[in-house]
Amino acid sequence: MRQVTHTLTSETNGPGLYEITNRVVDWCQQQSMQKGLLTLFIRHTSASLTIQENTDPDVCHDLQVFFDRIAPQHGSYRHSAEGPDDMSAHVRSILTQSDLNIPVRDGRCALGTWQGVYLWEHRTAPHERCVIVTVQGE
Amino acid sequence: MRQVTHTLTSETNGPGLYEITNRVVDWCQQQSMQKGLLTLFIRHTSASLTIQENTDPDVCHDLQVFFDRIAPQHGSYRHSAEGPDDMSAHVRSILTQSDLNIPVRDGRCALGTWQGVYLWEHRTAPHERCVIVTVQGE
Amino acid sequence: MRQVTHTLTSETNGPGLYEITNRVVDWCQQQSMQKGLLTLFIRHTSASLTIQENTDPDVCHDLQVFFDRIAPQHGSYRHSAEGPDDMSAHVRSILTQSDLNIPVRDGRCALGTWQGVYLWEHRTAPHERCVIVTVQGE
Repeated sequence: MRQVTHTLTSETNGPGLYEITNRVVDWCQQQSMQKGLLTLFIRHTSASLTIQENTDPDVCHDLQVFFDRIAPQHGSYRHSAEGPDDMSAHVRSILTQSDLNIPVRDGRCALGTWQGVYLWEHRTAPHERCVIVTVQGE
Repeated sequence: MRQVTHTLTSETNGPGLYEITNRVVDWCQQQSMQKGLLTLFIRHTSASLTIQENTDPDVCHDLQVFFDRIAPQHGSYRHSAEGPDDMSAHVRSILTQSDLNIPVRDGRCALGTWQGVYLWEHRTAPHERCVIVTVQGE
Repeated sequence: MRQVTHTLTSETNGPGLYEITNRVVDWCQQQSMQKGLLTLFIRHTSASLTIQENTDPDVCHDLQVFFDRIAPQHGSYRHSAEGPDDMSAHVRSILTQSDLNIPVRDGRCALGTWQGVYLWEHRTAPHERCVIVTVQGE
């Protein structure tokens, strides 16, 4: 077994789901790993990772609306030093993922037909986000 | 270190938690891996994975009631092309897990005394669900 | 590639986020693993794991307030045999993580600048909690 690692950076421009499926899948294929596990890790606490349907864009819209309702940006939070949208970003992060595992089979990420990999930005201002991708296998 | 992988399929019949602990634990033991990590990955975005108490069935009932309240099936979603229960299924999926890691020790999954592994179906119609199980270790 | 594993126990004293970053990071460094993946797994269903900001303590306060609102301790749950705070603890557990993955680079956990690792206790009574830490790499 061997392992390879890579840092993927992504520019975001406001709250929403940014699809990174192709970048993850393409990098994985280039490693010529026949089988193993790919792991993603986001180095932030106000942006997160998730796997969701990547066919109908309304799904991402509705997910965003759900979070706006359940963890509103201008809620009555004590933590406000970093802006009125920061605390809701932390809440949304703990409800989603800081890491994801995806199996690798026959040299490819074994995502289901409708699964896409997303970086979910929860802050309003533009950010550069950093995701560490690791594959372990053979 | 070595790795072994397996596909586990599960028939579901409406929303609820379907326990797969025994199937996962038994398969793991058959691999004769003394220590390592077992990883589960579900290839869907309207069903998910979770670890929960597997003693009192009321726990699963209450978890389902919680989701019916927080992400109702007939909410006002824009995404409705796949039926009135599909969007709430996506919301419930992002709030739970698409993957789980469980350590392996002394040839067995090191689950806690009360922990069970569940496939959580969020759709109303019957489905066949696919979970990829991988163990890496020695 | 090789793997090392360790059990970390933590005494808790009521609901809240208990930071375990230093214990995890220090143990990881002692393993002299240059690169790999560190995985944490909690062996309970009424306490969980999360990665969050570890600078302003108000963040942890607001996260706790959020859970008190969304999954109140004295909600109308069917499962009540283990006390009025047990079912809300299960709900909070499924909304957070039972496992976490953190990449290892240059012999260290590659956490982001503001990221801390937390054990989140959801029960009222004092508990001893057990987290299994595994690192795989080289």
